[in-house]
Amino acid sequence: MPTYTPPTRDMQFVLHEMLNVEAAFKELPQHGDLDIDMINQIIEEAGKFCADIIFPLNQSGDEQGCTRHEDGSVTTPEGFKEAYRQYIEAGWPSLACEPDFGGQGLPELVNNVLQEMLNSSNQAWTMYPGLTHGAYAALVAYGTDEQKALYLPKLIEGSWTGTMCLTESHCGTDLGILKTKAEPNADGSFSITGSKIFISSGDHDMSDNIIHLVLARLPDAPGGTKGISLFIVPKFIPDADGNPGDKNGVSCGSIEHKMGIHGNATCVMNFDGAQGWMVGEPNRGLQAMFVMMNGARLGVGIQSLGLSEVAYQNSLAYAKERLQMRSLTGPKLKDKPADPIIVHPDVRRMLLSQKAYTEGARAFAYWVGLMIDQEHSHPDEAVRKDCSDLVALLTPVVKAFLTENAFETTNQGMQVFGGHGYISEWGMEQYVRDARINMIYEGTNGVQSLDLLGRKVLGDMGTKLMKFGNIVQDFIKDNAEHEGMAEFIGPLTELGNTVRSLTAEIGQRAMKNPDEAGAAAFPYLRIVGHLVYAYLWARMASIALDKGDSDNGFYTAKLATARFYYAYLLPETQWLIGEVKAGAEPLMALEADLF
Amino acid sequence: MPTYTPPTRDMQFVLHEMLNVEAAFKELPQHGDLDIDMINQIIEEAGKFCADIIFPLNQSGDEQGCTRHEDGSVTTPEGFKEAYRQYIEAGWPSLACEPDFGGQGLPELVNNVLQEMLNSSNQAWTMYPGLTHGAYAALVAYGTDEQKALYLPKLIEGSWTGTMCLTESHCGTDLGILKTKAEPNADGSFSITGSKIFISSGDHDMSDNIIHLVLARLPDAPGGTKGISLFIVPKFIPDADGNPGDKNGVSCGSIEHKMGIHGNATCVMNFDGAQGWMVGEPNRGLQAMFVMMNGARLGVGIQSLGLSEVAYQNSLAYAKERLQMRSLTGPKLKDKPADPIIVHPDVRRMLLSQKAYTEGARAFAYWVGLMIDQEHSHPDEAVRKDCSDLVALLTPVVKAFLTENAFETTNQGMQVFGGHGYISEWGMEQYVRDARINMIYEGTNGVQSLDLLGRKVLGDMGTKLMKFGNIVQDFIKDNAEHEGMAEFIGPLTELGNTVRSLTAEIGQRAMKNPDEAGAAAFPYLRIVGHLVYAYLWARMASIALDKGDSDNGFYTAKLATARFYYAYLLPETQWLIGEVKAGAEPLMALEADLF
Repeated sequence: MPTYTPPTRDMQFVLHEMLNVEAAFKELPQHGDLDIDMINQIIEEAGKFCADIIFPLNQSGDEQGCTRHEDGSVTTPEGFKEAYRQYIEAGWPSLACEPDFGGQGLPELVNNVLQEMLNSSNQAWTMYPGLTHGAYAALVAYGTDEQKALYLPKLIEGSWTGTMCLTESHCGTDLGILKTKAEPNADGSFSITGSKIFISSGDHDMSDNIIHLVLARLPDAPGGTKGISLFIVPKFIPDADGNPGDKNGVSCGSIEHKMGIHGNATCVMNFDGAQGWMVGEPNRGLQAMFVMMNGARLGVGIQSLGLSEVAYQNSLAYAKERLQMRSLTGPKLKDKPADPIIVHPDVRRMLLSQKAYTEGARAFAYWVGLMIDQEHSHPDEAVRKDCSDLVALLTPVVKAFLTENAFETTNQGMQVFGGHGYISEWGMEQYVRDARINMIYEGTNGVQSLDLLGRKVLGDMGTKLMKFGNIVQDFIKDNAEHEGMAEFIGPLTELGNTVRSLTAEIGQRAMKNPDEAGAAAFPYLRIVGHLVYAYLWARMASIALDKGDSDNGFYTAKLATARFYYAYLLPETQWLIGEVKAGAEPLMALEADLF
Repeated sequence: MPTYTPPTRDMQFVLHEMLNVEAAFKELPQHGDLDIDMINQIIEEAGKFCADIIFPLNQSGDEQGCTRHEDGSVTTPEGFKEAYRQYIEAGWPSLACEPDFGGQGLPELVNNVLQEMLNSSNQAWTMYPGLTHGAYAALVAYGTDEQKALYLPKLIEGSWTGTMCLTESHCGTDLGILKTKAEPNADGSFSITGSKIFISSGDHDMSDNIIHLVLARLPDAPGGTKGISLFIVPKFIPDADGNPGDKNGVSCGSIEHKMGIHGNATCVMNFDGAQGWMVGEPNRGLQAMFVMMNGARLGVGIQSLGLSEVAYQNSLAYAKERLQMRSLTGPKLKDKPADPIIVHPDVRRMLLSQKAYTEGARAFAYWVGLMIDQEHSHPDEAVRKDCSDLVALLTPVVKAFLTENAFETTNQGMQVFGGHGYISEWGMEQYVRDARINMIYEGTNGVQSLDLLGRKVLGDMGTKLMKFGNIVQDFIKDNAEHEGMAEFIGPLTELGNTVRSLTAEIGQRAMKNPDEAGAAAFPYLRIVGHLVYAYLWARMASIALDKGDSDNGFYTAKLATARFYYAYLLPETQWLIGEVKAGAEPLMALEADLF
């Protein structure tokens, strides 16, 4: 049975020592009174809740899965509903929501910390409230005042939950060809008809009502993505008092059997003339949905951070306990039949990969989280714009880089367990199965790569990328004289230069042949991800160097992990650069029929 | 629902055009009369059997799993037993077995081809007969005449099956600390007592008897690996006529719930004074077991080859059918709502990775298979010795490199399916789950790496490695003047030189600090794997260049795949070389307590 201890020390390191969030929040009107102690106290409480209430339901939820009954209703695994009741009672859903509608008004960053711990504890469970926050955000941005008044308080308190209904059986990535129809009713509402698949938390027994945000086409809509509108379709139509009233024409047709996240109901949702209300403008539904989608993409990155952390904790504990073979340099525990496997260099390679990727992911996700808060409410418009650009640039990197790495690290965690890793009882293989979906949903990692290179980098002639490059350059300048930092600053500078020249090279090639961008996109995203990590690990190393051997070796470990990252993981860029330079020709040369 | 078509054209390419097996077999007394047509006919028949009888049981076997009853007996999934009956009736188990005991005396290489197709069809099912062949090989090598006469005919005809009983709950890799006891009986047999875990096919309903090969300690045995003996422990003790008689004191205590290969019963086997008979000499059981183990390691590589092939076939078919988004260079199917996803460079990257790794694995596994036949029966002792050395060197590479790559390629196959890849119905996620165990069992890939670098390379001062190096050098010399081959010969020469210098460098460092070998082992094995693939892909490319655009583009595709391998996959060595050069320090610097 796995265990989970919230990694509060490392969280505090990122928040207070690396990001200095107290000072950063002081510049934001809504959050000026948040101090270190308050933040730490919230994290402490959240950690207890996650570890005590949510984590114990992870394995049982995986084993039981969800059940759909004949009437289309869905029962979640034992304990899920009761845990959700406690989650609401403790006020966790409202953490980072608008005070005007009952929220606590805390920063998104603090919510990110909560989300990490929830996902370490139980990704399948966390997806129920997780999508609610996305639906909330879309309605805050695009809902009418009436819609906000009706739905936001319920979503914020958590008594109602939300879903995203995009995918249809013939289209996932390619939303332009979706078919679900929305016909106007006389009262200003719409009748929604169609079938959506892969709807996470599509139906369940945890909340009083479920608010589906559904993409559909108006009768006169133009083809393609410019003919898609967004609708609110509640499971129960709110009555005059705003309470759940009549059952709407939407139901779960089936639950998918899938590789992992068994505790979450992935539903086929059938809309049979269901009553819906438009959100935002006609034919501009994708714009509104992208608010939810971008939040979800960052959320998926944080899901993977959570899984990476809990898998690391458990493989580390196992590596310290499991006695097997002697150290190559001679027995370490002479009175035992063998040494703990953490003495073996290859086991350490796997543990340190997990550690470096997990702590790197935390630094990255929290840094972006802080920029989201700054984007929302920094008084200086220029800062808001910069943060908005950086968040847009880095969102696909968070989604794809963190999820690729976490699939690697959860697999390494499993590998440390040897044969036991493959056995369900030990819990490690579930982390691998759960982590696998994160590379697919909310836009496959291939799609993220095209978003980064095509839209975010080449699409604006590198303006956003240059903003990130300037941050790295400033850091390099600030540390140019710091002798101890030379081992990091050298490779960081080199990679920064490479990204600049490589981007220009791809841009030029892509002007002649757009497939060059398609070919470069995937390795390019990983190169940018490594540039981000190289920058963040250098920042963390500089703090560790200053602190020296204090705090029971915390900084010693941080520095050693930074060095491992630079020595073992960063050189992946050598391979990736080779792929980018190889270009489209080796991919496109072969005719499809000859594969 | 996935489909499977035996890839007979590519198999024939490797066998006849690359390995020229007819000529090679002519040199082996037992196999001199085997011609191309006979080999192709066997493959054709085997392919039909696999695709028609074994493949249809793959998904249902995964869903149903095995059931243990209260009396300790085990029922396999529906259809497994009947398929096994047909398998026996068709004589497949006896393919590569000694004619003296009822075998057909065909080469191991031909059996490898069968094994690939069986594993493409159903890895879990194939593990039942698969381990039998290993038990057969161990008894051929180390059994007494009496044991051979009693057991071999039954194992060869398949009416009895075999298992390997090594692992105990406290030891898998570290067999030196195993505890199962063997006490001598007056009649020359032994009483075996202990508990073994992770016993694949440990109990089942498919055969009349199960022959466990069990490692245990004699009462006076020295500690460590030099005190382990090997015993035959039949489920039913053969009576005077050699038929299954009294039930022995061995039973399945439980079946593990695991990530994949659900159709195979992974058992805890309890030995309660079970009657056993020693195989080989006292305290030298590991030596005998290594015959079985080496066969099993090559077999695991072939399992992964099989999974890689079937996953590729299905993702390729999906990529040609699934319409999603337009090509970046403009619509290709203008009358359809979107283009097939095979137009997208990133989808092609995944397909070509699968293709290059699968066909590379086939070339590698068959080449080693041929050398095993030559090792067994080539009339020239020097050839036998060379082949023996090369097989010993390459066995851990087949095991680890093929299984790592197949985990990557089955994941890519799944990724091509997008969200559908995660849904069980489509079958792709099962391939990932099944492929995952191959990186662990029969010695984790970390253990394979140490076997390669420590025992096979540094342990004999590079003698075996040099034999492989000479083969590569000869090929380079033969192609030095071939202009069309320059794009391959250049990088191949460079990597060959790198492996030579890197090996020397590691050897020197390891003399001062053995952890340097432990640190280098894992990336080193992958570098050697790439050297093997670079060599084999160059060989295949040279054939394709000669043939030009014939045979419906078969050779065009082969050449394009070789080019893709060199452009996109081989550059991984840049990363791996960086890891090796980084050495042990970044891994060993941090004290265990500070992780």
